Amino acid sequence: MGMVGGGIGSFIGDVHRKAAGIDGMIELVCGAFSSTVEKSIASGKALGLDENRCYGTFEEMIQKEKELPEAIRMDFVTIVTPNHMHFPPAKLALENGFHVVCDKPVTLTLDEAEALKKVVDKSGKLFALTHNYTGNCMVKQAKAMITKGELGTIRKIQAQYLQGWLSTSLEKTEQKQAAWRVDPKRSGIGGALGDIGTHAENLIEYITGLKITEIAADLGRFGEGRVLDDDGNMLIRMENGAKGTISISQIALGEENNLGIKVYGTKGSVEWNQENPNELITRWLKEPKKIYTPNGNGLHDEALAVCRIPAGHPEGYLEAFATIYKSFAIHLTTIKEGRTIEKPDYPTIKDGVRGMKFIYAAVESDKNNAAWTKLS
Amino acid sequence: MGMVGGGIGSFIGDVHRKAAGIDGMIELVCGAFSSTVEKSIASGKALGLDENRCYGTFEEMIQKEKELPEAIRMDFVTIVTPNHMHFPPAKLALENGFHVVCDKPVTLTLDEAEALKKVVDKSGKLFALTHNYTGNCMVKQAKAMITKGELGTIRKIQAQYLQGWLSTSLEKTEQKQAAWRVDPKRSGIGGALGDIGTHAENLIEYITGLKITEIAADLGRFGEGRVLDDDGNMLIRMENGAKGTISISQIALGEENNLGIKVYGTKGSVEWNQENPNELITRWLKEPKKIYTPNGNGLHDEALAVCRIPAGHPEGYLEAFATIYKSFAIHLTTIKEGRTIEKPDYPTIKDGVRGMKFIYAAVESDKNNAAWTKLS
Amino acid sequence: MGMVGGGIGSFIGDVHRKAAGIDGMIELVCGAFSSTVEKSIASGKALGLDENRCYGTFEEMIQKEKELPEAIRMDFVTIVTPNHMHFPPAKLALENGFHVVCDKPVTLTLDEAEALKKVVDKSGKLFALTHNYTGNCMVKQAKAMITKGELGTIRKIQAQYLQGWLSTSLEKTEQKQAAWRVDPKRSGIGGALGDIGTHAENLIEYITGLKITEIAADLGRFGEGRVLDDDGNMLIRMENGAKGTISISQIALGEENNLGIKVYGTKGSVEWNQENPNELITRWLKEPKKIYTPNGNGLHDEALAVCRIPAGHPEGYLEAFATIYKSFAIHLTTIKEGRTIEKPDYPTIKDGVRGMKFIYAAVESDKNNAAWTKLS
Amino acid sequence: MGMVGGGIGSFIGDVHRKAAGIDGMIELVCGAFSSTVEKSIASGKALGLDENRCYGTFEEMIQKEKELPEAIRMDFVTIVTPNHMHFPPAKLALENGFHVVCDKPVTLTLDEAEALKKVVDKSGKLFALTHNYTGNCMVKQAKAMITKGELGTIRKIQAQYLQGWLSTSLEKTEQKQAAWRVDPKRSGIGGALGDIGTHAENLIEYITGLKITEIAADLGRFGEGRVLDDDGNMLIRMENGAKGTISISQIALGEENNLGIKVYGTKGSVEWNQENPNELITRWLKEPKKIYTPNGNGLHDEALAVCRIPAGHPEGYLEAFATIYKSFAIHLTTIKEGRTIEKPDYPTIKDGVRGMKFIYAAVESDKNNAAWTKLS
Repeated sequence: MGMVGGGIGSFIGDVHRKAAGIDGMIELVCGAFSSTVEKSIASGKALGLDENRCYGTFEEMIQKEKELPEAIRMDFVTIVTPNHMHFPPAKLALENGFHVVCDKPVTLTLDEAEALKKVVDKSGKLFALTHNYTGNCMVKQAKAMITKGELGTIRKIQAQYLQGWLSTSLEKTEQKQAAWRVDPKRSGIGGALGDIGTHAENLIEYITGLKITEIAADLGRFGEGRVLDDDGNMLIRMENGAKGTISISQIALGEENNLGIKVYGTKGSVEWNQENPNELITRWLKEPKKIYTPNGNGLHDEALAVCRIPAGHPEGYLEAFATIYKSFAIHLTTIKEGRTIEKPDYPTIKDGVRGMKFIYAAVESDKNNAAWTKLS
Repeated sequence: MGMVGGGIGSFIGDVHRKAAGIDGMIELVCGAFSSTVEKSIASGKALGLDENRCYGTFEEMIQKEKELPEAIRMDFVTIVTPNHMHFPPAKLALENGFHVVCDKPVTLTLDEAEALKKVVDKSGKLFALTHNYTGNCMVKQAKAMITKGELGTIRKIQAQYLQGWLSTSLEKTEQKQAAWRVDPKRSGIGGALGDIGTHAENLIEYITGLKITEIAADLGRFGEGRVLDDDGNMLIRMENGAKGTISISQIALGEENNLGIKVYGTKGSVEWNQENPNELITRWLKEPKKIYTPNGNGLHDEALAVCRIPAGHPEGYLEAFATIYKSFAIHLTTIKEGRTIEKPDYPTIKDGVRGMKFIYAAVESDKNNAAWTKLS
Repeated sequence: MGMVGGGIGSFIGDVHRKAAGIDGMIELVCGAFSSTVEKSIASGKALGLDENRCYGTFEEMIQKEKELPEAIRMDFVTIVTPNHMHFPPAKLALENGFHVVCDKPVTLTLDEAEALKKVVDKSGKLFALTHNYTGNCMVKQAKAMITKGELGTIRKIQAQYLQGWLSTSLEKTEQKQAAWRVDPKRSGIGGALGDIGTHAENLIEYITGLKITEIAADLGRFGEGRVLDDDGNMLIRMENGAKGTISISQIALGEENNLGIKVYGTKGSVEWNQENPNELITRWLKEPKKIYTPNGNGLHDEALAVCRIPAGHPEGYLEAFATIYKSFAIHLTTIKEGRTIEKPDYPTIKDGVRGMKFIYAAVESDKNNAAWTKLS
Repeated sequence: MGMVGGGIGSFIGDVHRKAAGIDGMIELVCGAFSSTVEKSIASGKALGLDENRCYGTFEEMIQKEKELPEAIRMDFVTIVTPNHMHFPPAKLALENGFHVVCDKPVTLTLDEAEALKKVVDKSGKLFALTHNYTGNCMVKQAKAMITKGELGTIRKIQAQYLQGWLSTSLEKTEQKQAAWRVDPKRSGIGGALGDIGTHAENLIEYITGLKITEIAADLGRFGEGRVLDDDGNMLIRMENGAKGTISISQIALGEENNLGIKVYGTKGSVEWNQENPNELITRWLKEPKKIYTPNGNGLHDEALAVCRIPAGHPEGYLEAFATIYKSFAIHLTTIKEGRTIEKPDYPTIKDGVRGMKFIYAAVESDKNNAAWTKLS
């Protein structure tokens, strides 16, 4: 694995490294961690890398690594930069024969996302998008239950992703994480929409297996001087007639990372929240509420497959993130061995395009006073 | 207290009787419990009433009671019939000098509500509307915190009222509760909207002290053959610029009585749910989450005033309901003694009119594909 | 119902009155509320009683009421005084043909309890002890599941009753509740043991249907100058070989009223806590955790029988307390009608004797450095 | 790091490897994973190790690694075998100049533990014992609060470690984990006591900074034919006069991994449970309950120091385990650089000896019908 971005002090770069490492299947071998070669080398050395494989630019990394013997060179590039720096390295890596793992949202613009999809398709390389929450064991269980029809027909969905860290004007301090997220040049047209809204959208479509067809979005820009949304309230309609809401916020004061979803069907219902990820609450017509836990009683194989430790030993954010990397690594190993996997279970470029359509539809709807707007 | 409706087997009639009785300030002395005098007498006798004061119609009850000596006759009429039978007895009672307690929504139509307001105003009599959840101790604490500015400026509101009991076609069975609630002649133009939506609306306006100015509503009619809404997803905008969502449902399978609210301000936030009513979760900029409990540490006087038992001794649905009756009874006693109360703390005809406006705006918005619609 | 004790400002007297009133089956008609006739009359009048039936002593009350016509006089005496004033009025009432409801622990001493049992047996009158927590719907469900063998053989029990209100020397302030509870003359040989420990003991024996055979108790007297226990840690052994712990405290700072129990069998387990009383957590060998709720799915008839309101509408402390009164009132009505009830479901004098044996065994064990001591 | 034990299919070996890897400070370089060299090589190769460094015995590993250049050879040995195989490799490693990380309980017998302590002291090498739960962020916060006196004087402690996985006779199936744990030859004189009881004991002493002076233990052997305890109920007394209980079980049916602790002081109280590890509940004399979270508001530096990711991103079992390895790695790096750390924050051989004393005192007490027995 070669990393683009994620120098010392980066939040998400460190998360990717830890997550990639947990299952012992992936090794960081090189990186273009920073915009200057000196900083990149400093970061790489702190990570125990060979100085020669700490590059000043992603172009250099891709070029130099390509020249290394196959046994040595990186297998794939992982991109952990702000949104505006996803497309260029992703495209170049794919065109040079490297697989790609990329943080979300997939690109700065919808056009870029669609262009990237063409590049991926043409390249025949793997592309994973780190919608990490779909790696949670209980999310797999929820999806499996719905896929098998245990909830019946889905009628209602409620999802929220609420944070409070931008309640104050954090971007006016030295806080780097805040600065780029409120800047359209680096974030794109969505603020909270891109940063967290796409997780909610992806989680809904992943768990239910249903597409959101249209949304009505009322976005807020509560922070002084903000041009991008830091809050959003949305109505959604699903392809099967189900209805629901998505509420997102980065000004929901005191909320830490409250991503949650409820799905109601004609036979049963599920509820999950990532702050308490080791619990899936299910409700039924005639039976009492049942609570599933990782590696606990009654799980489907799809959920058991991603449990690492015995029941009652909580897995967290990093482990779910690691599951995306693990699924990707298994796929990569499989194709290296000349075999194929029918349905690899990690988010791909298709999810990336869906996410961008969601952002664009929400922004468009908001401009039209929350008029219904299609995701297409 | 004389009761209209609420014969044997009634759910809400029994709740009103228990709630009115808990604090020992109110006594049931007569009733027109049923549509026939025989049934009314049967119900009344089972309740230990004098047969002579079990009436066949509310008209008869009001007439006969009026003729009794003041010391003996009922002080007020409590109305626990389906919605279409609220206006006639309320009007007649007020016009004959009786105070009124009425279940919600206040009337069948908005016109009736506005007409009733005029009757109340003209009569000078008391009128209480049983939005019972506002009687909860923790709701009082939340309201007090917001009133005193402790949360700063309110920015975001999320409320839901989710039930699952109409997930199946219960109205096609013998279930009386279901039958009238899905029938426009008895319920009015709102289904879930009137039955539970008004509670959510009232709770929002009560806690925040802010008016909802407009809503965008996407209603569902999921039950086969239903003409009234059994589900609804709504965006809301508040008079101060805050935004939010309301989600209501009676087809959210497995949900029992999940009424909850979150309010986010610039200094703090509160979260409350009626299924776990003895807990108010608060969040803060710099401090850890704090959990308040009835009669527990740190409560404002407004909350302490309605606690009945020591901390850790849970109060429930009936006690909150009883608080509405208690506040009403205190007001009644006060004016009997020739004194006045500046701000009686129970819902009134004004809340009733607001509720009807909410129903009408939601239905109108839904007809216009969830276009923003004003509550006015 | 005639009340002994419970004058204005009393905590438990008010609880008894509210609880007795909730189901509309019991009416307070007289009382000896206080040690002077003036105070008793003041309390009685505030409660709306006829002045003639507000007595200065319980002896007077029993005498005078006995002289009233049967249709008018009280049916039973309810005793809500401190422990040392349970036995005298209970004995006198029974011997004069009145049924009795009495607060716990049943008497000041074990001798008194055993003497009272003889009086009850001889009198043929009803005697109810208000171990109110056994009135909870979820407690009934737990008991029913165990009785029907659904948990298999019981192996392990954990119970606790933790409060923090005596963390400071509250008895040295004006707090009346604290003063008598730390005074052996009024409380007996147990402090926390009598006040809350007996609730834990009773809950264990009620739910499991098993007797505690012996205990090893290490009591604490943490409050400065206290001669009675304000804390206790105990090992218990059950008649069937099950083992467990009971932990009680009134100096567990910050705990409000944390009474909870866990029972583990060979097939399943149950967990309940009175601070969150509307939830019974059950665990199983092969199935996921299941959560039962009052009037929710899957309840046994024994639990359904005591639910008052629909699922999701929380019942609390007063409602559980009321269930004891309701069961007593039903029994009383039944025998008045010349019929009998095979197994009346409320705590009786037998539970009272068990509770006193528990206190005595615990104190004895503690004196012997927590040596095993039998309850017999 | 060189590993002893932990071949393919091992539970705890895999946990150690993942935990050691999360922070990128430790690399597995060799191992004696299994009792035969073939199996050891198979395991090592699956882990990506050089075949030459997969050894058949720990003796061989220690010998061969010692001969390697310092830059290449393992820095320390990590021991993940059943209890009877802790002492021999630990002793040999230390005597040959290697640091040691060892799973708990530290040895098979108390004599071995005391002997090992002498070896450690003499060697001057580091020795870490993986009482992993003390690595939790919220445990650090609780300890820091107590150390700083924020809870006042500790009066009461309740700890439990409840599992249900040995409810049935799992050891009679092919389940390897169960087989050695019920076998005195491999487990020592404690069953559940050693496996989980020592975690509870260590957590109590770590958080409170107080020693347990004596215990009264009533052990259970509920599983058919078991000679070692699978359940235990204990009273404890602390060096400062505090009292409490410890309840442990592996037959608490349905419990997954319920390790929890409550500590009550004269100023405040704390409550923590490892199944919900990202929450520290605190209670106070005058203030409402406060809930702390990792990287959330109000944490002490000691807790912040071990947080990896932003608030609201749950950390789990592996991360807490990793914190032990990280602290050890930091200590190791520090002394390699010729510096020292005053108080390294990971469990050491002293904790190991305490744990063995706890097991021995509990077994002794149980033999004497739960008589008080000193830990000394």
